Amino acid sequence: MKAYRLIAGGGIKGLEGFEFKPRTLQAHEVRVRVRAVSLNYRDLMVARGNYLVSSKEPLIPGSDAAGEVTEIGSAVTRFAVGDRVATTFFPQWIDGPPTPEKTAVAPGGNAPGVLTQELTAHEQSLVPVPAHLDFNEAATLTCAGVTAWNALFVEAKLKPGDSVLLLGTGGVSIWGLQLARAAGLQTIITSSSDLKLERAHNLGAHNTINYRTTPEWQHEVLRVTQGLGVNLVVEVGGEQTLQRSVTVTKMAGTIAIVGGVSGFRSDVQPFALIAGARRMSGIYVGSRGMHEDLNRAVDIAGIHPVVDKVFAFAEARAAYAYLEAGQHFGKVVIQTD
Amino acid sequence: MKAYRLIAGGGIKGLEGFEFKPRTLQAHEVRVRVRAVSLNYRDLMVARGNYLVSSKEPLIPGSDAAGEVTEIGSAVTRFAVGDRVATTFFPQWIDGPPTPEKTAVAPGGNAPGVLTQELTAHEQSLVPVPAHLDFNEAATLTCAGVTAWNALFVEAKLKPGDSVLLLGTGGVSIWGLQLARAAGLQTIITSSSDLKLERAHNLGAHNTINYRTTPEWQHEVLRVTQGLGVNLVVEVGGEQTLQRSVTVTKMAGTIAIVGGVSGFRSDVQPFALIAGARRMSGIYVGSRGMHEDLNRAVDIAGIHPVVDKVFAFAEARAAYAYLEAGQHFGKVVIQTD
Amino acid sequence: MKAYRLIAGGGIKGLEGFEFKPRTLQAHEVRVRVRAVSLNYRDLMVARGNYLVSSKEPLIPGSDAAGEVTEIGSAVTRFAVGDRVATTFFPQWIDGPPTPEKTAVAPGGNAPGVLTQELTAHEQSLVPVPAHLDFNEAATLTCAGVTAWNALFVEAKLKPGDSVLLLGTGGVSIWGLQLARAAGLQTIITSSSDLKLERAHNLGAHNTINYRTTPEWQHEVLRVTQGLGVNLVVEVGGEQTLQRSVTVTKMAGTIAIVGGVSGFRSDVQPFALIAGARRMSGIYVGSRGMHEDLNRAVDIAGIHPVVDKVFAFAEARAAYAYLEAGQHFGKVVIQTD
Amino acid sequence: MKAYRLIAGGGIKGLEGFEFKPRTLQAHEVRVRVRAVSLNYRDLMVARGNYLVSSKEPLIPGSDAAGEVTEIGSAVTRFAVGDRVATTFFPQWIDGPPTPEKTAVAPGGNAPGVLTQELTAHEQSLVPVPAHLDFNEAATLTCAGVTAWNALFVEAKLKPGDSVLLLGTGGVSIWGLQLARAAGLQTIITSSSDLKLERAHNLGAHNTINYRTTPEWQHEVLRVTQGLGVNLVVEVGGEQTLQRSVTVTKMAGTIAIVGGVSGFRSDVQPFALIAGARRMSGIYVGSRGMHEDLNRAVDIAGIHPVVDKVFAFAEARAAYAYLEAGQHFGKVVIQTD
Repeated sequence: MKAYRLIAGGGIKGLEGFEFKPRTLQAHEVRVRVRAVSLNYRDLMVARGNYLVSSKEPLIPGSDAAGEVTEIGSAVTRFAVGDRVATTFFPQWIDGPPTPEKTAVAPGGNAPGVLTQELTAHEQSLVPVPAHLDFNEAATLTCAGVTAWNALFVEAKLKPGDSVLLLGTGGVSIWGLQLARAAGLQTIITSSSDLKLERAHNLGAHNTINYRTTPEWQHEVLRVTQGLGVNLVVEVGGEQTLQRSVTVTKMAGTIAIVGGVSGFRSDVQPFALIAGARRMSGIYVGSRGMHEDLNRAVDIAGIHPVVDKVFAFAEARAAYAYLEAGQHFGKVVIQTD
Repeated sequence: MKAYRLIAGGGIKGLEGFEFKPRTLQAHEVRVRVRAVSLNYRDLMVARGNYLVSSKEPLIPGSDAAGEVTEIGSAVTRFAVGDRVATTFFPQWIDGPPTPEKTAVAPGGNAPGVLTQELTAHEQSLVPVPAHLDFNEAATLTCAGVTAWNALFVEAKLKPGDSVLLLGTGGVSIWGLQLARAAGLQTIITSSSDLKLERAHNLGAHNTINYRTTPEWQHEVLRVTQGLGVNLVVEVGGEQTLQRSVTVTKMAGTIAIVGGVSGFRSDVQPFALIAGARRMSGIYVGSRGMHEDLNRAVDIAGIHPVVDKVFAFAEARAAYAYLEAGQHFGKVVIQTD
Repeated sequence: MKAYRLIAGGGIKGLEGFEFKPRTLQAHEVRVRVRAVSLNYRDLMVARGNYLVSSKEPLIPGSDAAGEVTEIGSAVTRFAVGDRVATTFFPQWIDGPPTPEKTAVAPGGNAPGVLTQELTAHEQSLVPVPAHLDFNEAATLTCAGVTAWNALFVEAKLKPGDSVLLLGTGGVSIWGLQLARAAGLQTIITSSSDLKLERAHNLGAHNTINYRTTPEWQHEVLRVTQGLGVNLVVEVGGEQTLQRSVTVTKMAGTIAIVGGVSGFRSDVQPFALIAGARRMSGIYVGSRGMHEDLNRAVDIAGIHPVVDKVFAFAEARAAYAYLEAGQHFGKVVIQTD
Repeated sequence: MKAYRLIAGGGIKGLEGFEFKPRTLQAHEVRVRVRAVSLNYRDLMVARGNYLVSSKEPLIPGSDAAGEVTEIGSAVTRFAVGDRVATTFFPQWIDGPPTPEKTAVAPGGNAPGVLTQELTAHEQSLVPVPAHLDFNEAATLTCAGVTAWNALFVEAKLKPGDSVLLLGTGGVSIWGLQLARAAGLQTIITSSSDLKLERAHNLGAHNTINYRTTPEWQHEVLRVTQGLGVNLVVEVGGEQTLQRSVTVTKMAGTIAIVGGVSGFRSDVQPFALIAGARRMSGIYVGSRGMHEDLNRAVDIAGIHPVVDKVFAFAEARAAYAYLEAGQHFGKVVIQTD
């Protein structure tokens, strides 16, 4: 079997394949033949060295994988051989609010990741895959899907008729758009490309704004929300967006900090939070429970996540480069052949 | 102008028309030319005398009206002449949790109701009508729509992928079905008529159950929810349904008590609540804030409430009788000409 | 080492001691030298056969134990030898809302219990004991303490100034009283004994009611709450209390069903739930997370749980009989010598 | 009758007394003989011109007053002559979440304030005063008390055993300390004065930190919270505190932004919010409903708010100067004679 590894901070060019031999399963472990891995902005950060990883040992990157169970340990009860499964972002965060203990282990960050043809995992760290998704689609829920879910329905507790602003067309934003539409929310999305905005419109965006041709886009958001602003901004970072995001957040609304694509400028005036009774909330992906809730919602609503481009296993570096170029719409996936 | 009145407990046959003269508006009052009134099961209860009304004076019945503003008091700021408005169920319950003070006044119960061609109301007790609704549709939100909203999104706080069981095809149930579909929920509905179940299916019900041909319908609900049961039952009363409703409620789920179509049998064993960590919640319609939230959701999702049958103003008694017959699907409306 | 066992439904007289030999620990298991076990009404129900247990095999009863860690398995990280620990009610319910899976195993119900001098348990199923508690006190949190916590702060989400009615002076009620006082709540408690009411008053009860001399005690509860009623009733069952409990619950308040000492009469009219927007919530003990939260609260407030009477290990049957007599105030504890 | 007025931005020295004549009451208005007014940091901001006020017309400052009802309008039902009442911060924010409409009017900001011997107010904008408080004490709830309440129990939803960090010994911080103690919370407070810390300790603070002698006070906060941090920081601004406040906030905890005494440095890194799943929440005082809830809590817990110093009406300027000097502990009050 083959996998990829890199050294944190060594850049994309440090990504290299290697061969490995399967190890024996422990009682509660499951062996998974990985079929697809989706990349996240966090994977770029790990490669660049500006994520949380401090080790200088080679690491298998990646957090999001889907595949088939090929073997189970002697005590496994959650899965059987042949089951289609996906990985969860924090193997130890099953349920309830996050704690340092629950979020201590993060594959692809401080533990072996999933960019591999085969992995072993504790049965508690895997979830079933919705029946109508193929493996490429199923590999997109772990980080981006769960992050969007957490922001919209756990932290902001949005209900039908509420409004959400999605910045750009990356994985979290497009997941946010699809979930918001399925939930009866008003959806507003920005992009620098009219072509992408048209795609977003076809996915159900009520309002689209080209932030290149409308640099003061906050006025447009206020206009389409009767001057009140949105209940939630899913803030992924970007070119000095944070202050505008606060401005367009409705009184008592939430700015979910999930990013950042290009870092945040910390130019927010606290008074804007006070006089708006606004909340700026850090979203740290989410629990297995949220992943399972997302699974149900995807299942009931028949959502097919948007996979922008699929790369072969041998093209992993090209996949990273494509994500880095920032021209994608939705998720970038690597098939593990 | 004409209106109807009746004496609580006098039955439908006591409903009689009368002429009245408009009175002068106070500073914060609005005059509304009513265009449509929808009936609720509660209106039958008032007529029969098994609702909360104790007075033996003639009363204008009805709580749900939509119409146009024709005159405003000197201090009114919320509305202008020509605005399309609907009444709220509790004129004094603006926002926040209910209190005895907020729910003290209920038009059509212990205060003059809305089955009239013209009414005057405090500006705080009216809400705008979503633009895409006609008056018949707009008259159906006040009681049934808000009750369903409160049960699903305030009390049970359902999120996409959650499941709801709707009993029968009356006003609250069909509102619940439409809202649940717009919110990405799994929807299960019961009826004694396959024809109605087909209509429900066309409105988006995922699962339909004929409780006549499947009297032990709880097994079917459990079957389509993987043995787990539903997150919410909207319990409107009926033939010994309550115990079954508890049985099919998921652990930690909610039974919303909104009914009484035919009274409840109090045969619920407390242990079923304990071992299931279940909640049985009384739903007392809702606040103006909930009505406004419902308006937004209806607007964003483009929901058209189901109006089963429209009666002319002269046919008000026939409308009551039609509702009493219990063969409707959705709401029964009286146009006020 | 010695333990007790009984056959469900065989009555207290079936309780018998037996000798057993320690078994080898698995990797994640901990061996605990039990020092104290507290009894709950549930233990009487198991003995009588009116609890959930269907097996006719002898079972070690009891759910609440405190003791010292004497040995740890090879992979244990949560505890060290010498640590003082208590058992949790549901070993598999770590956190988050309950599910059938999490509540599937309940020691002393459908799994070996804790009325033993030594037990082995998965490290995840134990919690540390607050430093200021002795073992007798520490053994009272598992069922009664966590149940009161869940009712007051998880289900009813009470905040300072809210009011709670506690029925009788059993374990859950006295725990509720102590927690409510520490949390700045108004506390009302009932008993048939003026002596016990005086003790409750000394523990901080704001209002005490003798339900024998004041059989229509609901009027008194309403009187001391300005006619509004309480935010929460902790309903443990009893002589036709449920209807009164609903009557004295404030609009939008909660009746927590945790009992039942003598079963419930199901005579509640659903309309009382609707017109009061009240909630009747089954409380199924709680999670390890709640137990840990309770630990922190007990620690910060310096609460010493009320231990009514302590029995020697050889007197276990007498302890059961004492609990059954219903004359206790707080918790009944068996030391395991 | 006499009152004070100033021009926003004109400084404390612009504060001047003037005589005025009572005006006729409208139907829903109440006349109040003010007995005491408490000052807030916001009053200094108004005087300095760095608050929200844009008008250059003279304005009666102040938001917090307590006094007696001396006359009621013809339609008033909430109060009678002789009742002891306090003002609410936002006269139109009765209940529920804040909206621009509800918070549009703020006495002492953009509407006539309360630094006067007599005022008239809509009956809906006043609340009763807890019986055990004198007027000086009762005048301290409106802004500082409600702000602390909102932060602790509405936004952060703290429960017994949770921990809160209070920065400094101003009005909001000392209110926070007293409420936290009454609610069974762990309390940590900072000051530059050991004398004040001793007073705080006597009020029940569990941990006190002198930020002058311990400039890196975050380490101490982490130490006394087992390295986990606090559930809530009540952040009132100050010398570069915000980043430290984020550091000492527990995972999934809240930083309540209520200040600022000396402005905020916007040097917070968003990643600290993400990886801690932390929430930074603007607190905009609160609703009348929160004020009423606070009243109940103060009543049940028997809290006497800390009044640092009382000034005579003629000494209003000295009171402002005293507050500005920042040496107070608790609230500064002006009696209106």
